[in-house]
Amino acid sequence: MDALRQKRSGAFAALDTMLPVWMLLNAVSGLKAEDDGMEELATEKEAEESHRQDSVNLLTFILLLTLTILTIWLFKHRRVRFLHETGLAMIYGLLVGVILRYGIPATSYHHKTPPSCSLKEGPVSTLLLNVSGKFFEYTLKGEINSREIHNVEQNDMLRKVTFDPEVFFNILLPPIIFHAGYSLKKRHFFRNLGSIITYAFLGTAISCFVIGNLMYGVVKLMQVVGHLTDKFYYTDCLFFGAIISATDPVTVLAIFNELNADGDLYALLFGESVMNDAVAIVLSSSIVAYQPSGANTHMFDASAFFKSVGVFLGIFSGSFVMGAATGVVTALVTKFTKLHCFPLLETALFFLMSWSTFLLAEACGFTGVVAVLFCGITQAHYTYNNLSEESTKRTKQLFEVLHFLAENFIFSYMGLALFTFQNHIFSPIFIIGAFIAIFIGRAFNIYPLSFLLNLGRRHKIKGNFQHMMMFAGLRGAMAFALAIRDTATYARQMMFTTTLLIVFFTVWVFGGGTTPMLSWLHIRVGVDPDQDQQPCGDSFQVLQGDGSQAEGQSKTKQESAWLFRLWYTFDHNYLKPILTHSGPPLTSTLPAYCGPLASCLTSPQAYENHEQLRDHDSDLLRNDGDLTFMFGDTAITANGASGAGGDAAGGSGWSANGKRSGSTSEEALERELDSREQELLSRGTRLVFPIEDHV
Amino acid sequence: MDALRQKRSGAFAALDTMLPVWMLLNAVSGLKAEDDGMEELATEKEAEESHRQDSVNLLTFILLLTLTILTIWLFKHRRVRFLHETGLAMIYGLLVGVILRYGIPATSYHHKTPPSCSLKEGPVSTLLLNVSGKFFEYTLKGEINSREIHNVEQNDMLRKVTFDPEVFFNILLPPIIFHAGYSLKKRHFFRNLGSIITYAFLGTAISCFVIGNLMYGVVKLMQVVGHLTDKFYYTDCLFFGAIISATDPVTVLAIFNELNADGDLYALLFGESVMNDAVAIVLSSSIVAYQPSGANTHMFDASAFFKSVGVFLGIFSGSFVMGAATGVVTALVTKFTKLHCFPLLETALFFLMSWSTFLLAEACGFTGVVAVLFCGITQAHYTYNNLSEESTKRTKQLFEVLHFLAENFIFSYMGLALFTFQNHIFSPIFIIGAFIAIFIGRAFNIYPLSFLLNLGRRHKIKGNFQHMMMFAGLRGAMAFALAIRDTATYARQMMFTTTLLIVFFTVWVFGGGTTPMLSWLHIRVGVDPDQDQQPCGDSFQVLQGDGSQAEGQSKTKQESAWLFRLWYTFDHNYLKPILTHSGPPLTSTLPAYCGPLASCLTSPQAYENHEQLRDHDSDLLRNDGDLTFMFGDTAITANGASGAGGDAAGGSGWSANGKRSGSTSEEALERELDSREQELLSRGTRLVFPIEDHV
Repeated sequence: MDALRQKRSGAFAALDTMLPVWMLLNAVSGLKAEDDGMEELATEKEAEESHRQDSVNLLTFILLLTLTILTIWLFKHRRVRFLHETGLAMIYGLLVGVILRYGIPATSYHHKTPPSCSLKEGPVSTLLLNVSGKFFEYTLKGEINSREIHNVEQNDMLRKVTFDPEVFFNILLPPIIFHAGYSLKKRHFFRNLGSIITYAFLGTAISCFVIGNLMYGVVKLMQVVGHLTDKFYYTDCLFFGAIISATDPVTVLAIFNELNADGDLYALLFGESVMNDAVAIVLSSSIVAYQPSGANTHMFDASAFFKSVGVFLGIFSGSFVMGAATGVVTALVTKFTKLHCFPLLETALFFLMSWSTFLLAEACGFTGVVAVLFCGITQAHYTYNNLSEESTKRTKQLFEVLHFLAENFIFSYMGLALFTFQNHIFSPIFIIGAFIAIFIGRAFNIYPLSFLLNLGRRHKIKGNFQHMMMFAGLRGAMAFALAIRDTATYARQMMFTTTLLIVFFTVWVFGGGTTPMLSWLHIRVGVDPDQDQQPCGDSFQVLQGDGSQAEGQSKTKQESAWLFRLWYTFDHNYLKPILTHSGPPLTSTLPAYCGPLASCLTSPQAYENHEQLRDHDSDLLRNDGDLTFMFGDTAITANGASGAGGDAAGGSGWSANGKRSGSTSEEALERELDSREQELLSRGTRLVFPIEDHV
Repeated sequence: MDALRQKRSGAFAALDTMLPVWMLLNAVSGLKAEDDGMEELATEKEAEESHRQDSVNLLTFILLLTLTILTIWLFKHRRVRFLHETGLAMIYGLLVGVILRYGIPATSYHHKTPPSCSLKEGPVSTLLLNVSGKFFEYTLKGEINSREIHNVEQNDMLRKVTFDPEVFFNILLPPIIFHAGYSLKKRHFFRNLGSIITYAFLGTAISCFVIGNLMYGVVKLMQVVGHLTDKFYYTDCLFFGAIISATDPVTVLAIFNELNADGDLYALLFGESVMNDAVAIVLSSSIVAYQPSGANTHMFDASAFFKSVGVFLGIFSGSFVMGAATGVVTALVTKFTKLHCFPLLETALFFLMSWSTFLLAEACGFTGVVAVLFCGITQAHYTYNNLSEESTKRTKQLFEVLHFLAENFIFSYMGLALFTFQNHIFSPIFIIGAFIAIFIGRAFNIYPLSFLLNLGRRHKIKGNFQHMMMFAGLRGAMAFALAIRDTATYARQMMFTTTLLIVFFTVWVFGGGTTPMLSWLHIRVGVDPDQDQQPCGDSFQVLQGDGSQAEGQSKTKQESAWLFRLWYTFDHNYLKPILTHSGPPLTSTLPAYCGPLASCLTSPQAYENHEQLRDHDSDLLRNDGDLTFMFGDTAITANGASGAGGDAAGGSGWSANGKRSGSTSEEALERELDSREQELLSRGTRLVFPIEDHV
């Protein structure tokens, strides 16, 4: 019914829409330079003009970003908080979109209708054109609405600022998602892992189905009223539910980070929004794959449903394995080479390996973005420990910059798209219905699941936290990227328009309202989320214990899931020592008969520098009420394998059951610690904790 | 005569060769999902397959780079020097190229010849296809050789690993060139600026014409012998001269940096190779623009020649102005905002502004790469001083990583191209002729110009330096990028093949032979090029003077060019204070009636922190024999505007004529200096110099 318009341009399309033409012209002019100079000159000029146009378009975006950066600075400088930077980027995008749409007269450098030829077969990807014996190759760009044939080239300006949707998925999203995984604050994250997974998987699925079904009702209503002019299937509604259920980590991250809100709330919100991005991608592609066989399409079919569930599980676990695998390979490479002597090489390797995760997953038919998320988490957990001091900074900063640019680009593009995208379908009923549906969907996600989780949690998710989670369900880059990926049908176009409006609304209203909402809900603000990680006072204590011996954990056992503790022990005793320079030497954790292998795999640093732990996961297990539990990574001191005195201070241990078990002179250590504090903190070793936290 | 084959794929083509098809299929399946399920499924699978293939191709490159990085590490670790890393990247590229070419059976996922249709008009950029009433838009990809029609899709694998040449120009070269400008060691560079410009401009032009004419002789010879099967014009020969005259900064930079060879030699070689890249680009596009009017084409025509010279000058100066202008704008923005409180914003702004230079220049019809070079130099000279401590590191590291990746990518791609590029024309006579011609061309560049320069230089360019410059004329990324940009005609294909071989040979043989050659020519190695910038011993001395007063310069006047000194004074007194936080306050350098304006433009830091200079150009003027001349940037102490005692130590001055003019207690200062040395060095202020250097 409606036109399919493949719009793509800017940086990459600039390279291929115009340049082949240019090169062809060069070639042609080389071949028959004598023949027809004038005609070529005209076409060459046209190509040049088009190239310039491309540069101008990209320049528009860059100036937009520059403007955004300057205003962000101004806002930060003046401590303006009612509008977040992503909202700002959108506003600038909107303004430029309006100017492009209405301000500039439709400049088209040639007005003629392109020549056409007929063919009986269906559209093919490659077409040959025979011009008096010479053959030219053409590539399919997309279908053209028959009423738009005559201005194919006219709306060039608007078409050119509209990027290929896949640019978002393949170029802009990976750095954002990788950065989310890489910069995840593991302590709070792992502490709340169970809840996060529940919200992200079960919650998103619930939200998807609730929204999908509500929207199907809305669509039925529209059919009755007569507002629906084309087909809108049940699967389309479910697809809408999937793309709109993903909450956005970007805005939440930025606002909560700035306000230093409660660490657990932050972890819940951020963890959920990072994970549900992954869930939404896989869910939406499963729904697309949910193609019921037979003529009776787009209705419920049990076999197709289970097939979709299978696809979901397959893609998700496959992507997870891919991401984790490349992370592990990178860790092994950085461990067993002395690459850390050359930070540049190390950073480059890190970057390339992380990128290859994406490609590897795509090549295997999994989802690159999901793989990149888990790769980021793995890299932060293992590889990060092997990197040189400089590389840890470099990699963080590199991905921070990439993430920042990509994110602001997406948001300002969203603003732009509201005016430059040409197939918007504004349906008031659908939009209002969608707004109501996402609220109900979010409520069905948060409140029942929180109730269920609180049955098992000792550290309950309080009511005001639940309201905040309800409120902070912002939609952002991922919903947009999923929606723009396919805007071919009537239904998809309507979804795209609605998604865009929902993103605008939630980012502006909910994003801007975060600060008032936090104070209204009496959620403490200004707490450093890592506060209790740092020694906060003057009395410290070093506790020692044995990493391989679990008798001290009895109190936390009720809370820490059995599976998780098993994983932690395995990770701590085997994976960490194998993959990184940290952890107890394998010789002490593996059975004796594995001796040669163990000493081969253990790096010399594990013996020598076992106080130089840089990882922050020494406090993986849950905070047991008031008692802060911390796990050191080198517990070999109690085994007598090495270390004494000063080393013990650095080497740390894990806390037993709150009783002092230090064997060295504590006062001496305390004094030493005060002076070494700075150094140790910079290494990130959590070896001390406040005495007043003890029962 | 020969086929024009537009090859493009990989990262970006992956986005547009396959995805429109995929999206179309989605659209089509949405429109008529009931109709023809089977056929679509087949095409969809094909598209998916193609997408996977793209990912695999890109993955190949990434693994190649990863392998290169690991081997580079191994080489650095074992101190292997006979093969440089760029040479290594090429070897890996070669190996993979061989495997792709001969190892993998031609896998094509469909063997049918694409449908064709006829048209009487010439090739157009956009074509419409009418399939039973539906219109589809097609874009021109390129001309196809009639004998290759039947395997258009067959050599897909090889075609896909062949990137769009413009990717090199628009994506990979800018970071390399920007980094070269940004990391230029300004001291040695400006000291030898005259010589560098002479070699780069005059030398490259000489080399271009010498090579062009010699090659024209070779081409004539080939015509006589009958080895030439197609047209080869005089302009083609000149074009070859232009693209092959640019020496490569990459390899020289890396080897000399590692060996710590003589600073002046390094500056001459590096400066020349950076500048002649710019010259070569503009020169080659001027030669392309050298289209003599009338029928008698491709022969010498005075008006066309002068037109070319005009084009050259116009493009070069335009690009220069563009680059400098964006640099200045960035400097102003970073100066007058407090953006340095947010290093991330600052880095992002810096990155965007530098990138926009490229686009701006392209949009205005100038050369982006040249603009980016001068932008880099301007950014390093002004903006760098305004950045926060963290941003200076961040920007350096960011561009270092980008540069490293881009450079290794280009070199490994070169290796790959030798086997995967399908239109090589190996002509032994042409290749041998080219090898001889580049030697002669280089000799005509170096020896006569060095002789002329030595007439004016006090610090002569010694014979062994000249031989080394002759030897170090490696060809690299720029020659390759210029050659691959247009491989449409017979002549261009032959040039491309020859360029590739010359790059291989020079990088492997000359690059690997640098170390033996240096010792053979008795050029001292292992000298820190910045050695005389650092206080090297135990006795230091602080000299003070007045920045605006030039009486102390009498001794250097003979050497420093009049124009250059004028520029330096202007830069130091007006530009630096306006654009950066450093330099003397404008209130002291501008006439009194400019008072209000001056105090408005001068940043508070110029008064307060005038010892916090971070720029390294305090020693711009030439080293006068044994006496090291250094220029401080804040000479206001002598003016009495501010500063005394401790400030004087930090504030520095510029040396008078070698006499001590310090007014504060020198012994006290010496003691203080010893302790502050570290701090000051990290700020990069050159305020002291060894007493023993004085006459």
